[in-house]
Amino acid sequence: MSRVYNFSAGPAVLPEEVLQSAAAEMLDYNGTGMSVMEMSHRSKAYVEIIKTAEKDLRELMDIPDNYKVLFLQGGTSQQFAMVPMNLMKNKAADYIVTGQWAKKAAQEAAKYGTVNQVASSEDKTFSYIPDCSDLPISEDADYVYICQNNTIYGTRFKNLPDTKGKLLVADISSCFLSEPIDVSKYGLIYGGVQKNVGPAGVVIVIIREDLITDEVLPGTPTMLKYKTHADADSMYNTPPAYGIYICGKVFQWLRKLGGLNAMQKRNEEKAAVMYDFLDQSKLFKGTVEKPDRSLMNIPFITGDDELDAKFIREAQAAGFENLKGHRSVGGMRASIYNAMPIKGVKALTEFMNKFEEENL
Amino acid sequence: MSRVYNFSAGPAVLPEEVLQSAAAEMLDYNGTGMSVMEMSHRSKAYVEIIKTAEKDLRELMDIPDNYKVLFLQGGTSQQFAMVPMNLMKNKAADYIVTGQWAKKAAQEAAKYGTVNQVASSEDKTFSYIPDCSDLPISEDADYVYICQNNTIYGTRFKNLPDTKGKLLVADISSCFLSEPIDVSKYGLIYGGVQKNVGPAGVVIVIIREDLITDEVLPGTPTMLKYKTHADADSMYNTPPAYGIYICGKVFQWLRKLGGLNAMQKRNEEKAAVMYDFLDQSKLFKGTVEKPDRSLMNIPFITGDDELDAKFIREAQAAGFENLKGHRSVGGMRASIYNAMPIKGVKALTEFMNKFEEENL
Repeated sequence: MSRVYNFSAGPAVLPEEVLQSAAAEMLDYNGTGMSVMEMSHRSKAYVEIIKTAEKDLRELMDIPDNYKVLFLQGGTSQQFAMVPMNLMKNKAADYIVTGQWAKKAAQEAAKYGTVNQVASSEDKTFSYIPDCSDLPISEDADYVYICQNNTIYGTRFKNLPDTKGKLLVADISSCFLSEPIDVSKYGLIYGGVQKNVGPAGVVIVIIREDLITDEVLPGTPTMLKYKTHADADSMYNTPPAYGIYICGKVFQWLRKLGGLNAMQKRNEEKAAVMYDFLDQSKLFKGTVEKPDRSLMNIPFITGDDELDAKFIREAQAAGFENLKGHRSVGGMRASIYNAMPIKGVKALTEFMNKFEEENL
Repeated sequence: MSRVYNFSAGPAVLPEEVLQSAAAEMLDYNGTGMSVMEMSHRSKAYVEIIKTAEKDLRELMDIPDNYKVLFLQGGTSQQFAMVPMNLMKNKAADYIVTGQWAKKAAQEAAKYGTVNQVASSEDKTFSYIPDCSDLPISEDADYVYICQNNTIYGTRFKNLPDTKGKLLVADISSCFLSEPIDVSKYGLIYGGVQKNVGPAGVVIVIIREDLITDEVLPGTPTMLKYKTHADADSMYNTPPAYGIYICGKVFQWLRKLGGLNAMQKRNEEKAAVMYDFLDQSKLFKGTVEKPDRSLMNIPFITGDDELDAKFIREAQAAGFENLKGHRSVGGMRASIYNAMPIKGVKALTEFMNKFEEENL
């Protein structure tokens, strides 16, 4: 068995020891005589798994007691509708559009009320984060929405926007658990787990308790009410049980490595290896304005489409997978989530250096 | 490692060789150097997995070309809303209520239009299937809805209702792939896979193409439109990729065993072992009217709650897991899905026989 360096933007690399442990337990979890896939979600063994996962996540993120953690399905795309259906009491919301995902979220929300785009970086292909220190926040806005890390473009909010007292809602899918965040600054946080936490098919919602109400927009399906899931501790119907179990293993792995402060340090080191290389390279260059660079997703180009294609081809042959940029952008992108070891990043920059020498 | 006999109603037992194969491939699927959990859903390797899964399912169920197969999230509970949101053009539908799940589906649909309950077996705790040969089908009904196999109560429709020309919609979660069905008789079929097909977190929808339209109820979220997923071959957003991969392995296992005709024979043999035992027992008895008995879920009682509890306890100690009846019903229930081997059913009846001798 030979593992590759997998720079996929998501679904993405998982910690090898998590996979090994899952493989070892596949036919018999902890002496139960069955796989976690085969367990009733209401069994003692499974309830222990999901409760432990929640407890570990709460400790990792230091989630205040007045926030609920929900393990849901449908991905972030479903959250694009759930957020307005549950939070748009005044039928108005402000969106900061820093990429395709925020844009899609804004478009979906516009089905349910008035959406004001209070800032955007679309003028420069989303290569920066707009100044959000004094935005024209709408007086009747139910919330202000951001996508905190932009997977496709490789930007991130280093500082949160000033929402002028309005609720902040954030999609943190691609920076989930990459560094500490102050949960109390948000009304609602959600993330698909398939980038930095686990297998596709689980979305985690962290929501302040006072926002969980029966007052949702008319016609909201039962499954799309946060209250349905909050009241049932994510067990209103059968949850994506195996995915949650893998997330739980990742939480334990993160705790063992020292939690989110340690991950931040590690991720900053890894990102620095890439950015330092890009900043001195005569062939490759990063596409994002420096202050807004993501720790997780690093897009870069040579400026020559044919050379980009050659690089991607040769990198793949050398065991560096999924370096092709998003189909809407082109170029290259290295996603270096928590589970990507620093030696993978170093090996990539060495390969890039060699390619540069051969092709410059 | 010691495997138990797992009679869980869902999530439920999976074929041992499927689990073994998944464990073996956990760190390196087919020479890709990565787990299926880590793969971009748009990668060649993953697209091959989902396409093969669909192809195998089409062959197994002999799905006509004018039906689409969708791999979705959210479970059957989400379908309870998706069905009316997509199909209720006249804002009316007829529901046949044969258990809790059909009842919940009807309640959810009532949010979106007029729901007529055209038949019910609630008068006798859902222990039978009502006569559906001449129902008062509503003239403006957009569809007639059934839950084809009732997991909690252990009944099933042996014959489909006469819908008088109206579209038939069926939840087949707990009889999915247990025997051949004639797909062309339905407008839409759906099933959560966590009973007879795979791990929780995937719901499969089989829908006639002419029913896939943009004319959905106002306010329907993008993710709850069948057209969204049909147009994108279930890849509108990241699908529950690992769950679909396991389903694909189960499809291959079923094909190897001879397909659904072979499964029907096998399931009839297994069910006969249980029902024959119950019919001669002086202690245990089945709770369902004979013609309506499910092949998959077999509830039974002693008539004495304490003795039931003792039986469940002793059975568990002997390696027969999850025999407790649904919390809303009590008694016992043996779910004997495809992956339960006949030797498991025989071992259970032998244990029941011994218990009967000791306790009668």
